[in-house]
Amino acid sequence: MKLTQEQIEQFWAEGYLFFPEAFAEEEIAILRDEAERIYATDRKEVWREKTGAPRTAFAAHTYNEAFRILGTHPRLIEPLEQIFGEPLYMHQFKINAKAAFEGDVWQWHQDYGTWARDDGMPEPRAMNIAVFMDEVMPINGPLMLIPRSHKAGVFEAGHDLETTSYPLWTLDKETVTRLAKEGGIVAPTGKPGSVLMFHGNLVHGSAPNITPYPRRIVYLTLCAVSNYIRKPTRPEWIAHQDFTPITPVPDDALLRCARNHYQTAAE
Amino acid sequence: MKLTQEQIEQFWAEGYLFFPEAFAEEEIAILRDEAERIYATDRKEVWREKTGAPRTAFAAHTYNEAFRILGTHPRLIEPLEQIFGEPLYMHQFKINAKAAFEGDVWQWHQDYGTWARDDGMPEPRAMNIAVFMDEVMPINGPLMLIPRSHKAGVFEAGHDLETTSYPLWTLDKETVTRLAKEGGIVAPTGKPGSVLMFHGNLVHGSAPNITPYPRRIVYLTLCAVSNYIRKPTRPEWIAHQDFTPITPVPDDALLRCARNHYQTAAE
Repeated sequence: MKLTQEQIEQFWAEGYLFFPEAFAEEEIAILRDEAERIYATDRKEVWREKTGAPRTAFAAHTYNEAFRILGTHPRLIEPLEQIFGEPLYMHQFKINAKAAFEGDVWQWHQDYGTWARDDGMPEPRAMNIAVFMDEVMPINGPLMLIPRSHKAGVFEAGHDLETTSYPLWTLDKETVTRLAKEGGIVAPTGKPGSVLMFHGNLVHGSAPNITPYPRRIVYLTLCAVSNYIRKPTRPEWIAHQDFTPITPVPDDALLRCARNHYQTAAE
Repeated sequence: MKLTQEQIEQFWAEGYLFFPEAFAEEEIAILRDEAERIYATDRKEVWREKTGAPRTAFAAHTYNEAFRILGTHPRLIEPLEQIFGEPLYMHQFKINAKAAFEGDVWQWHQDYGTWARDDGMPEPRAMNIAVFMDEVMPINGPLMLIPRSHKAGVFEAGHDLETTSYPLWTLDKETVTRLAKEGGIVAPTGKPGSVLMFHGNLVHGSAPNITPYPRRIVYLTLCAVSNYIRKPTRPEWIAHQDFTPITPVPDDALLRCARNHYQTAAE
């Protein structure tokens, strides 16, 4: 997937781009199934809400074939290579559950704030690209973004160790209020397979999910290879230290994996 | 305001009716101002979130003139008189804040479940009519309703004394999931002054509000006079025991109150 010049300009202006249904249902179904298998395990990479419901699973691309393919997929890798103008490595890989009824809040934050403070990443030349595994609706805790909030660098933040099981550098209310006054708040919604990419400094958050509808999203954090992290403080499976450039797989690799998987299962 | 036959049929079929901008901005502005004055007091009727932000203020119609008028307003009283076919009294009166950043969850529940269990109300012949004081958006914790969930009576519920500062009889996940499968979930949104009325057995809830946009709603709980509560266990200012039928004020009473108020203030 290649971005047009217009899309690239829109990305730098607004801080995000949204691609409805970039993946087919057949490609996403296997990811959902595999995510559930992963959430059901008690490996250290699976973090839970205070209720015990899954919150996030780290590094699935290192221990699951379908997610390994997703982590090297050209529809995700190529647009970010265009943005950064160089090869990428995988800085972080998360499957966020936002489970039905129990998915808890992600307070307002900038991703790069954490990557800089906790991992020693030199520049905001890394970003998240999100793949919706479920339909994201206005009511099931959609990701909320503050457009244009990526333009003023890293804001001061407090280390929130209390609200949820996931430590996060979060912004104060005054900053969020001011940024929302300037840029508004958007909450891109769409079918499974939709893709959202957003700048590492774009302020975002999401409310809890109290509906019966889970809202699972895979986040690839792709970093320009030259921007590799200098001072890691987090475990390798949270902030990776393998800086090998990613070579994209063929565009149909995930589809073939899915067909092969279910065919084998049916035999 | 009188309901048409079609609206009455729709109410019984779906369990709710929504009236965008039933009140003018001039009528709502005074309510917002007065609500803030009330929230700033430390009277017993004002309950707070765990953070200290206001959560709800009870019985404002008994100690504030603008809310007294709202509590007898024909645009709210007349439709419910039509539904119940008899005069009404005020069972409960709440100003729910759902404050910016801090407004917490209301778990899935039926109002009549609480009125029956806690107040000894004989029949579900009472209901809430909500007046939006702020714009209710998809992102600031809108009220979510499960259409048609009012048709099966009162569901079993557990007494939730933990989640928030407000004790509530809440439904289990299996029941909510089943009802949502049948009826879906709607979240009516709209400008300040919009009005939402919903059946006492309609299942509803709302997620926390993490946005900078407050979402204040006034709830009048109007009860058919013959259906007065038999076994009150809650204080009189939560579940009223004055069963006097409400006589509606003229339709322009709130407008005149607002104009008078701001004119006097300007003099």
